[in-house]
Amino acid sequence: MPLAQISLLRGKSPEYIRAIADGVYQALTEAYNAPVGDRFQTIRQLAPGELIYDPDYLGVHRTDDVVFIHITAGRWRDTATKKAFYRRLVDLLMAKPGLRPEDVLIVLSPNDRDD
Amino acid sequence: MPLAQISLLRGKSPEYIRAIADGVYQALTEAYNAPVGDRFQTIRQLAPGELIYDPDYLGVHRTDDVVFIHITAGRWRDTATKKAFYRRLVDLLMAKPGLRPEDVLIVLSPNDRDD
Amino acid sequence: MPLAQISLLRGKSPEYIRAIADGVYQALTEAYNAPVGDRFQTIRQLAPGELIYDPDYLGVHRTDDVVFIHITAGRWRDTATKKAFYRRLVDLLMAKPGLRPEDVLIVLSPNDRDD
Repeated sequence: MPLAQISLLRGKSPEYIRAIADGVYQALTEAYNAPVGDRFQTIRQLAPGELIYDPDYLGVHRTDDVVFIHITAGRWRDTATKKAFYRRLVDLLMAKPGLRPEDVLIVLSPNDRDD
Repeated sequence: MPLAQISLLRGKSPEYIRAIADGVYQALTEAYNAPVGDRFQTIRQLAPGELIYDPDYLGVHRTDDVVFIHITAGRWRDTATKKAFYRRLVDLLMAKPGLRPEDVLIVLSPNDRDD
Repeated sequence: MPLAQISLLRGKSPEYIRAIADGVYQALTEAYNAPVGDRFQTIRQLAPGELIYDPDYLGVHRTDDVVFIHITAGRWRDTATKKAFYRRLVDLLMAKPGLRPEDVLIVLSPNDRDD
């Protein structure tokens, strides 16, 4: 039962935000062994100053379109599965709502089956 | 030192919300070895579209009363303790504020004693 | 890539909040092996009743200046590093914006390198 928390700056349309949430859900079901219907997501729309990042880190340029996607999910997935999930999610968000890959930040918090 | 984050849709009274927070704290102390007074909780009241779930997943019907309860707590509890905690928490929230068990979603994120 | 979520009660100035965020980032880079520029932080300003704590727990008195700092970071740091990080962070926040150590609450959620 992955729980996804999506944080971004205020100012985007409901459709834009929904496209991100849909992409996260689709990537989880297609590439992360989450069952269809296993969808638990929260959205945080933050004011300027409430979402802080370095616009130029390790040669990567980020913009105010940056999205933090924090997913709590079972630790039993292996590294290859995680990489496939990251790729699939970024591809989906590039297609819709049209995010730059550099603006997609994915963090996983592993837990156990009984959690 | 369990840290609990409780997310629900806007529109509930302060008393309703407090009853959920009290239930989480009571269940942690009664069934999860948290000391009395060890209470650190945040509440997120979300707008429609900011809390996303599938109303019918695995034959379970959820409503807009759904509450996501995300607890970061030490990984030393065993599966039996976790199950007892889930049961106790659901019982308390059914009693007050009167939640349906299907609308209570509990996710644990384990960490270590030195965390 | 540590992800930090900072929660506090509403009513503080942007400068006050920024000082906390800066302290978290500085402590991570100085004492927790986070690279310079590796800065991903979200701020939650909560209403009364949305941030709940026991003002007197284990002989420690907390006030409404209390700040919950929740950091998701790799599990490879050892206990000594964690303790040094806690000390450095508290020292920085005492200096600026002038927090009492008792009002600084730090919780780590460990994840893995591929997360």
